[in-house]
Amino acid sequence: MIIILDAMGGDNAPIATIKGAVKAINEIDSEILLVGNEKIINEHVKKMYGKDSINEISEKLRIHNTTETIEMEDIPTQAIKHKKDSSMVVGFNLLKEGKGDVFISAGNSGALLTGATLIVGRIKGIDRPAIAPMLPSYKKGLMLMDAGANTNCKPLNLLQFAQMANIYLKKIYNVENPAIGLLNIGTEETKGNDLTKESYILLKESSKDLGINFIGNVEGRDAFTGEVDALITDGFTGNVFLKTIEGFGKLVKKSLTENLKKNIFTTLGAIPALPSIKRFSKTMDYKEYGGALFLGVKQPVVKAHGSSDEYLFYCTIKQAERFAKSGTVELIKEEFEKK
Amino acid sequence: MIIILDAMGGDNAPIATIKGAVKAINEIDSEILLVGNEKIINEHVKKMYGKDSINEISEKLRIHNTTETIEMEDIPTQAIKHKKDSSMVVGFNLLKEGKGDVFISAGNSGALLTGATLIVGRIKGIDRPAIAPMLPSYKKGLMLMDAGANTNCKPLNLLQFAQMANIYLKKIYNVENPAIGLLNIGTEETKGNDLTKESYILLKESSKDLGINFIGNVEGRDAFTGEVDALITDGFTGNVFLKTIEGFGKLVKKSLTENLKKNIFTTLGAIPALPSIKRFSKTMDYKEYGGALFLGVKQPVVKAHGSSDEYLFYCTIKQAERFAKSGTVELIKEEFEKK
Repeated sequence: MIIILDAMGGDNAPIATIKGAVKAINEIDSEILLVGNEKIINEHVKKMYGKDSINEISEKLRIHNTTETIEMEDIPTQAIKHKKDSSMVVGFNLLKEGKGDVFISAGNSGALLTGATLIVGRIKGIDRPAIAPMLPSYKKGLMLMDAGANTNCKPLNLLQFAQMANIYLKKIYNVENPAIGLLNIGTEETKGNDLTKESYILLKESSKDLGINFIGNVEGRDAFTGEVDALITDGFTGNVFLKTIEGFGKLVKKSLTENLKKNIFTTLGAIPALPSIKRFSKTMDYKEYGGALFLGVKQPVVKAHGSSDEYLFYCTIKQAERFAKSGTVELIKEEFEKK
Repeated sequence: MIIILDAMGGDNAPIATIKGAVKAINEIDSEILLVGNEKIINEHVKKMYGKDSINEISEKLRIHNTTETIEMEDIPTQAIKHKKDSSMVVGFNLLKEGKGDVFISAGNSGALLTGATLIVGRIKGIDRPAIAPMLPSYKKGLMLMDAGANTNCKPLNLLQFAQMANIYLKKIYNVENPAIGLLNIGTEETKGNDLTKESYILLKESSKDLGINFIGNVEGRDAFTGEVDALITDGFTGNVFLKTIEGFGKLVKKSLTENLKKNIFTTLGAIPALPSIKRFSKTMDYKEYGGALFLGVKQPVVKAHGSSDEYLFYCTIKQAERFAKSGTVELIKEEFEKK
């Protein structure tokens, strides 16, 4: 397989993308095609590894040269339409032309969604593709869908998210009968806004026929007990959910560290506990779960975190290979085409 | 002042309400009027304190006898209309008749909101009263409004929430120029759903005239840095936000404890760190910040957590006294009547 990596996307590109690719390359079966400015990439390779080209590090690493980069400030649709030789647009086109099996980018999220929809294209029968990251939960992961691709949703969109989540969790995480819940502000059927009330009814009616284990409404307070495998929601609420966890996680980390440092006795005593706390902090960081998949488009697309460092690109590359190998996208196509 | 306490409301009533009242009574200037079944309350008092009536414990503790209780399963409007002798309805009526200065209840939230609006009544000029809890943030609290009273909101409602939050923070927390943000999924003006886009414009246009320090859109990831004093949002999104923090907080606490227990060496070493971790856990628990105020009604109403224990009732009683003494409700009335 060939993993296409947008070498210029993200806050720490291209250093972090290059390093992540180098770190991952011997642990995966696939080749990595770095899409970006060849001159700049090779300059960094020279500086970091003392080699003249990235291909000297591993035969499985190659560069596809591009001259433009989509910036964070660019307007998504315009960037995708006009920056034809940007690493992101070229990456998408390589994927579409079959020159790779999965595309990863940490670049402008809006442009990534636009590109995935415009260049790669929606799967027939799916109205809205959506973003699906994995979040930490008790002793397992929690899938969130949609985490921000669609600000306005209809009940049908949420049903389709549930169908895709179901396939994804079965195929990639081997969850036998994924428990799929609707994110809401109460557990009763009558709770919520118009969207959640109508979606509840649709999910309840359709889930049996579609083989979905719909467990009903789930409140945020019960989302992380390990009893829920996927949380279905519109992109606005999902994005609030995701970023709230991120912000609260940061507060937890900061407060915990400062609390431990508060007096010298505690600090000395706490030293043996530090590995546990570090391990704990890692478990609580949703970035550890890799990038977010963009489900509902015809080929595998992975959105890496904008702030990804070497380690995160390494994780995301491995995750992307698993995703491409799993055949999830093909299964989703089958499910929606059979209708 | 007289604090009216719904003695029968909440999962742990009446034991926790009685104990909380007894614990608080010597630390406050006010009297506490426990509203509930006198026989049941005095039976518990006898068992717990060996006294024949609660009044023997302190002259500042009294009971107002009622015969009914609103249950968690009751339909809010029906309960308020038909259970005329319930502790909640009687409590509201006592407040309305001037027989007390603030009303606290941990009972059925829907019924509490209905009762506050129907019995106590909205302040003229305020379209929607809202729930405002304090959440943990970096080295201070973060006010959330609305946390769940209004599932559907208009931009004007959000503007009014901002006005009330502004008064409340200045008056109760002595924040000089409270930083008030709009909870959204991006910081740019153009981000969000229809409600947040329109609310952004309205808040931006009106804030100067109203003396509000509107800091623009705030994402959940930046909500807990201590730079935001109040987060304005509709009741659906606010409730998701609140419960997500609660759920994630539980996960953090559980994972941290289990991580520390993982091996005996770590556990032994971690013992000196335990007070710090306990202190940390407390800081992270939003319940430590007391109950949530119901702002926008003509008299002070405080919603205690349904799961409040003795300590939480104690905190909430002290908070309620501060709220009543502060004159916040009068100030809100003035602000909205001057229009």
